[in-house]
Amino acid sequence: MIDMILKGGTIVNETGREQADLAITGETVTAIAAPGTLTEAREVVDVSGLHLIPGAIDMHVHFREPGYTHKEDWGTGSQAAAMGGVTTVFEMPNTDPPTRSVREFRDKQARARKSCVDFGIYGLLAEDNIAEIPGLIEVGANAFKCFMGNTFGNLPSPSTGAMLEGFEIIAPSGLRISLHAETASIMAWRQARLAAAGLNAPLHHIGARPEIVAIEAVSRAAVLAEWTGARVHVLHISSAGELRPLAEAKARGVDMTGETCPCYLFLDSGDYDRLGSVIRVNPPVREPRDSAAIWDALQTGVVDMIATDHAPHTPEEKRNPVIWDADCGFPGVETQMPLMLTEVAAGRMTLEHYVRISSANPARAFGMWPHKGRLSVGAHADIAVLDMDRQEVIAADRLHSRGKVTPFEGRTTIGAPVHTLVRGRFVQRNRTLVPDIAGHGRQVTDIQRMPQP
Amino acid sequence: MIDMILKGGTIVNETGREQADLAITGETVTAIAAPGTLTEAREVVDVSGLHLIPGAIDMHVHFREPGYTHKEDWGTGSQAAAMGGVTTVFEMPNTDPPTRSVREFRDKQARARKSCVDFGIYGLLAEDNIAEIPGLIEVGANAFKCFMGNTFGNLPSPSTGAMLEGFEIIAPSGLRISLHAETASIMAWRQARLAAAGLNAPLHHIGARPEIVAIEAVSRAAVLAEWTGARVHVLHISSAGELRPLAEAKARGVDMTGETCPCYLFLDSGDYDRLGSVIRVNPPVREPRDSAAIWDALQTGVVDMIATDHAPHTPEEKRNPVIWDADCGFPGVETQMPLMLTEVAAGRMTLEHYVRISSANPARAFGMWPHKGRLSVGAHADIAVLDMDRQEVIAADRLHSRGKVTPFEGRTTIGAPVHTLVRGRFVQRNRTLVPDIAGHGRQVTDIQRMPQP
Amino acid sequence: MIDMILKGGTIVNETGREQADLAITGETVTAIAAPGTLTEAREVVDVSGLHLIPGAIDMHVHFREPGYTHKEDWGTGSQAAAMGGVTTVFEMPNTDPPTRSVREFRDKQARARKSCVDFGIYGLLAEDNIAEIPGLIEVGANAFKCFMGNTFGNLPSPSTGAMLEGFEIIAPSGLRISLHAETASIMAWRQARLAAAGLNAPLHHIGARPEIVAIEAVSRAAVLAEWTGARVHVLHISSAGELRPLAEAKARGVDMTGETCPCYLFLDSGDYDRLGSVIRVNPPVREPRDSAAIWDALQTGVVDMIATDHAPHTPEEKRNPVIWDADCGFPGVETQMPLMLTEVAAGRMTLEHYVRISSANPARAFGMWPHKGRLSVGAHADIAVLDMDRQEVIAADRLHSRGKVTPFEGRTTIGAPVHTLVRGRFVQRNRTLVPDIAGHGRQVTDIQRMPQP
Amino acid sequence: MIDMILKGGTIVNETGREQADLAITGETVTAIAAPGTLTEAREVVDVSGLHLIPGAIDMHVHFREPGYTHKEDWGTGSQAAAMGGVTTVFEMPNTDPPTRSVREFRDKQARARKSCVDFGIYGLLAEDNIAEIPGLIEVGANAFKCFMGNTFGNLPSPSTGAMLEGFEIIAPSGLRISLHAETASIMAWRQARLAAAGLNAPLHHIGARPEIVAIEAVSRAAVLAEWTGARVHVLHISSAGELRPLAEAKARGVDMTGETCPCYLFLDSGDYDRLGSVIRVNPPVREPRDSAAIWDALQTGVVDMIATDHAPHTPEEKRNPVIWDADCGFPGVETQMPLMLTEVAAGRMTLEHYVRISSANPARAFGMWPHKGRLSVGAHADIAVLDMDRQEVIAADRLHSRGKVTPFEGRTTIGAPVHTLVRGRFVQRNRTLVPDIAGHGRQVTDIQRMPQP
Ligand SMILES: [Zn+2]
Ligand SMILES: [Zn+2]
Ligand SMILES: [Zn+2]
Ligand SMILES: [Zn+2]
Ligand SMILES: [Zn+2]
Ligand SMILES: [Zn+2]
Ligand SMILES: [Zn+2]
Ligand SMILES: [Zn+2]
Repeated sequence: MIDMILKGGTIVNETGREQADLAITGETVTAIAAPGTLTEAREVVDVSGLHLIPGAIDMHVHFREPGYTHKEDWGTGSQAAAMGGVTTVFEMPNTDPPTRSVREFRDKQARARKSCVDFGIYGLLAEDNIAEIPGLIEVGANAFKCFMGNTFGNLPSPSTGAMLEGFEIIAPSGLRISLHAETASIMAWRQARLAAAGLNAPLHHIGARPEIVAIEAVSRAAVLAEWTGARVHVLHISSAGELRPLAEAKARGVDMTGETCPCYLFLDSGDYDRLGSVIRVNPPVREPRDSAAIWDALQTGVVDMIATDHAPHTPEEKRNPVIWDADCGFPGVETQMPLMLTEVAAGRMTLEHYVRISSANPARAFGMWPHKGRLSVGAHADIAVLDMDRQEVIAADRLHSRGKVTPFEGRTTIGAPVHTLVRGRFVQRNRTLVPDIAGHGRQVTDIQRMPQP
Repeated sequence: MIDMILKGGTIVNETGREQADLAITGETVTAIAAPGTLTEAREVVDVSGLHLIPGAIDMHVHFREPGYTHKEDWGTGSQAAAMGGVTTVFEMPNTDPPTRSVREFRDKQARARKSCVDFGIYGLLAEDNIAEIPGLIEVGANAFKCFMGNTFGNLPSPSTGAMLEGFEIIAPSGLRISLHAETASIMAWRQARLAAAGLNAPLHHIGARPEIVAIEAVSRAAVLAEWTGARVHVLHISSAGELRPLAEAKARGVDMTGETCPCYLFLDSGDYDRLGSVIRVNPPVREPRDSAAIWDALQTGVVDMIATDHAPHTPEEKRNPVIWDADCGFPGVETQMPLMLTEVAAGRMTLEHYVRISSANPARAFGMWPHKGRLSVGAHADIAVLDMDRQEVIAADRLHSRGKVTPFEGRTTIGAPVHTLVRGRFVQRNRTLVPDIAGHGRQVTDIQRMPQP
Repeated sequence: MIDMILKGGTIVNETGREQADLAITGETVTAIAAPGTLTEAREVVDVSGLHLIPGAIDMHVHFREPGYTHKEDWGTGSQAAAMGGVTTVFEMPNTDPPTRSVREFRDKQARARKSCVDFGIYGLLAEDNIAEIPGLIEVGANAFKCFMGNTFGNLPSPSTGAMLEGFEIIAPSGLRISLHAETASIMAWRQARLAAAGLNAPLHHIGARPEIVAIEAVSRAAVLAEWTGARVHVLHISSAGELRPLAEAKARGVDMTGETCPCYLFLDSGDYDRLGSVIRVNPPVREPRDSAAIWDALQTGVVDMIATDHAPHTPEEKRNPVIWDADCGFPGVETQMPLMLTEVAAGRMTLEHYVRISSANPARAFGMWPHKGRLSVGAHADIAVLDMDRQEVIAADRLHSRGKVTPFEGRTTIGAPVHTLVRGRFVQRNRTLVPDIAGHGRQVTDIQRMPQP
Repeated sequence: MIDMILKGGTIVNETGREQADLAITGETVTAIAAPGTLTEAREVVDVSGLHLIPGAIDMHVHFREPGYTHKEDWGTGSQAAAMGGVTTVFEMPNTDPPTRSVREFRDKQARARKSCVDFGIYGLLAEDNIAEIPGLIEVGANAFKCFMGNTFGNLPSPSTGAMLEGFEIIAPSGLRISLHAETASIMAWRQARLAAAGLNAPLHHIGARPEIVAIEAVSRAAVLAEWTGARVHVLHISSAGELRPLAEAKARGVDMTGETCPCYLFLDSGDYDRLGSVIRVNPPVREPRDSAAIWDALQTGVVDMIATDHAPHTPEEKRNPVIWDADCGFPGVETQMPLMLTEVAAGRMTLEHYVRISSANPARAFGMWPHKGRLSVGAHADIAVLDMDRQEVIAADRLHSRGKVTPFEGRTTIGAPVHTLVRGRFVQRNRTLVPDIAGHGRQVTDIQRMPQP
């Protein structure tokens, strides 16, 4: 007996779309069928006129727990995801304590149990925890994170030698290593120079992290990945310049993927005056030529996916008048999908391509395919149900994150996820959180199979 | 009400596989559902333990009608296709008369009505029919064929100037131009030299058509395609050398696809002594290094698809003791799938990748996607049902083509299509042709949409 | 005893310059010495303030004899060269009769004896003289010319097959094959279309020979050269588009060189209205973007050398009001050096680089190095003595060619060869021809050594 | 009046050779003349049968003064150079104290005055002397040295951030930055691992410095050079792998040069057992495939020049039984030319090409052209006079360095510099040092002109 039929919608995968009803039994999709073919079910939900896509998979969120729960925790963070059509998140290790060994990993797993969406947990790769990596792999780290440059949490970035050791140890597992690809020592010299000169305006944030920090870091990571066979992932691509080493490495056959985030697509240096320290993020929002190049790379496949770098802070932390002391980053997991759908509405990208970059590509790159990333029989019923015509206005105080600041404040969006299902269960319905969903989320370890190296 | 359920099988698309039942109503797939979800239907067919893939789409067959019906006709040719799991064929214009203008095209359309599988009909692009091309497009040519070098039928190959004219005229239609990419004038000089020297052994066939004929033709076609925006397709890739200009053109963004055929993958110069004139084909089977390079290119995507160049002749025509007089080519549409599945069984290729090169890629390249090339709700129910363990031995006299000669005589294959359905109807069942299927085939014109240039 | 000292000048080679006196004994340079070091000589010529460069080597002139001596002959042509600082020319085979076999080659050698500058003689590579090529090599052809597209003389262009045969035969000799790289059949189709439409204005000359004719021909030649190992040379590069296949072939290691001519550097489509049929040349002068790209390629080495395509016609032949009947080309061997030196004066190119492209590179590419192409002890005393400040105005009626028409009429030049010496003898002195120089020229066969293939 | 005529020899430059006499007046070449043309001179030296080449320019020597004069000093080091046909050396800053600021630079200049050959002095670019760089430029540093990995002297390698600062400061001067391109942190991790495992055999030296240390460092340097416009030079290329990033950077237009040294051409991993700790050098001698690739790159120009990394130690320092404590490097400035000429004799390289890589290319890359790097009127009379047939056997105890250990002990060489002249004066004659030459050498600052950036 079918548990639920989503009836009357259009099912969209990366390879095409079909007018069809979708059946769910238990946690999985059990049928896709022409309208009217399926009749009996415990529940029938009318989704006429709506589009069903695989829920977004966000490889890059900071849920801040443990250590900074005034900014976010697994409950609030995953609720924001549910509101944003995001059904799986991978959470970053720069919490307090950092997720650097089995002990901290187990602690984070326990805390993550309250998540309402599925999740992966990153293990840390740092200078001083190389010996902990095998344990982290064994206990179920879903990916690794390496901070080549410092950002929130100020974890010291590993030397190239330590990175190489870590890459060699991780390579046989097939697990992907995600890189904050900015070179720490360049930024340290630049920021010292700017600070010494008394240059503290928001725009100087770019000056302290010029494009070369990303170009150098991506180039170096490509060389290390090629040598070791480790899979790597470039987080938050922000510059035109880093696309060259990424594209060249791919052409040489290095298994390297890349993501960008909405702020690098929708904002640029022209927004600093207006936004002040709110726009501060690492790496920084750059020039119009950078966002144009990244858009292009997202279409051609040089950039593989969209993520959010969801990085909540309190308004006070964000609005520090001394730019060097204002916290970097802002929440994003709830706004990514409406922002991108607005571009779909504008004809800049097909909905199929959006499914590719928001769900199918992350699922493949991080080993969750074929369970996630597509709407097909046997796959998880992780679904964002879209009203492609729905207009909304982004307002930070209505966001479900604790980080009530966004650079997209006041922006009108077209298209939104009106329901979100995780493994067959509504977590968001009619733009409202469903009660009692805490704990529905599950770590992806049991389904994750990294492709043969 | 569902017309038919194929129950208990594994459905395989290029992007993955699922254990599911498949429903058909009318001509299309109307449901894919977990085992047992679908219950009521007019007919239920048990396909337990079998694999369902989208039927193969063969962009390159010669059915010889009109003019050479002692070799093949639309009835026998399409029956061979049905036996081979091929549900759509594109038929070549070097019949007698050639398909060079509206008149011949309409005549061929009439004759093709007896086909039991779906089909496209190629129009000719030659030196002397440039003015006919707009008419051919209007009356429904599904693609064009340009003989850059002579082969059976001895249609004079167009000059580069005429090709350019033709490409310019065809480009706005988006229709693809398939190329017999061997340079006629090089072959004429070589063959004359060999014949003058009395060199007539089977292996001299390679000498008369050295790799440079393909390299030159592919290079030239790429340049003309890039200039005009015409889409082109390189037929029967036979050499390592021609892969360079093909890959370079793709990297420059030229919309150029390529196919190879089983003989270039499974045979090489070591087979000439054994096979004599039977192995004679244009372009020729070449060296082991060529087949190795083509295999590799088929995996990496430089070669997009597998076709058959199904080219039947009578045994007498094939076995002429004077090599230059033995007819070139052999039937293939019935044996391609078993031959390739044998490689899948050997682990050389996944079944998903086979679906990509035999069905999904041709469907996309020639505008039949999303109706063909995949098994999804709304798509045509063109299905090859496979027994992946079935062993057979290839024997020409059991082939359904009139051309009872094959270079694969005696070869054992593992894996075969035990049923073939075209738009929901069995045309082959249990390795036997279904009666009264003549005329079930339909020209693909109504579903063909070439992507925006 | 030194025969002559050129005293007080600056000697410029491609690799640098030195303030030094130059001694000549017999035909060769016998000393280069700091000012005042050399004292005794039969003759001392004061060249204070002047620059001495190796005489230009022009790989591309049409001296029209036999057959069209009303346009030019070896006497007038070589005198124009002497006036232009050109000390060696290679002469083209599209005379009447063409230089297609030993007989015509010997006849041309006899006529060339009246030349006052050194020379090479091209043999023809055509569809119907492949069998004559070994004889032409033996009797001393210095290079071969292949008309891939028709131009003056209307020699039928060889098929690709005949080209390949010719390339294979010539390859072991190491001799270079120079290509009129425009594809005949494309031009035939285009010109027919334009003529049928009544389009006869000068600018339609470009329309009849669009860039693709050059791109296609260069691409094809590169493929044939790579396959056979033959050395090739692309004559009169006129388009940005053909630079790509040239550069790519060089990068693959194909021994392929290229030349351009002043008209492609100094004129563009904006000059057609002003110049009318005078500007007609094959290939045509194209767009500003083409000349910009060619300038750049000349600096970076993708284009190796400057030649003139000296192609004289009578004013009546040039000024035919029906554009398709106006003869193509114009004289150039006398004006190339002043035109290019004007650019040196403007700082666009160093004099050293001009020596490289006008003398050293042609000498190397065609096997005359180290005898020609440099001013060093032991090299031929082929010298252009330059006054870098001399202003002149180009006037066709003062040119020494019989072709009294030039598109550069009225142009002011800065810098000119005030003396020209060929193997130690003045042929031009103080901008005036020296009497009795006819016959001083010598075919370069005895010094020509093509580098090992 | 000519001071000296070298009579009867063959003068060889990178672009060709000539049978000619060479005159010297003062410090410069004042004439090159056919045999017998020059008659009067204060001194005539018969060099019949010998070859004259521009003296070698060695961009990479360690003369160890101040601080380690028991290993070498400017007197002994420059005498070894004179014996080896080397007329200019660039000396490295890892002395004690290192050449890190104006004070140490001035001290080294004073000590260098006893050199008998011309010289440049490297300034250091390190983490802690960035502020000293402008002073070093002003006081006459001829190039900079950056230790990306540690070697003798154990100068801490700068962070990427400090390198970038240094590159930016140096870029406008045009001065070249030479890189010990091995990544320190990788080596530190590897060596620690090997030492911990008790692996101390000579071959483990390779294990501690795997190819990736060079690949990574060269890749990174290329990125920093491209960003800043600084010119860089890769010292002692040892691996096949680092050639890719070097070649790619050159193709992108980065002004990057590279050198290799004889040990990487003539030795490989097969020599470790025989040579023990003597072969220890940084970077290490690697595999046969590496030396083959470097040979090839030296012919094609990816590697620009040959240097020696002349790095003398006492035999006791070299022969430490604990491999990690044996000093790295060995003397080379005296043996490079005989070793390379032996390859010229074997036909592996022309003498012209040897002149290019040993003299002309270094002169150009480091701004000494046209004064050095060629034998032409006006250039310095820095000359190595070669007997191409002379056989010698390398014996460390006959070398003129204080470092009496060489991995080439006992090797027979063919071809040797029988005289060496520096700016017109014999410093070595008939394989014997000339008395009283100390102090003839001069710093190249006054002639050094870096090309426009
Ligand atoms: Zn980050
Ligand atoms: Zn982050
Ligand atoms: Zn064909
Ligand atoms: Zn065919
Ligand atoms: Zn021409
Ligand atoms: Zn010409
Ligand atoms: Zn070093
Ligand atoms: Zn060193």
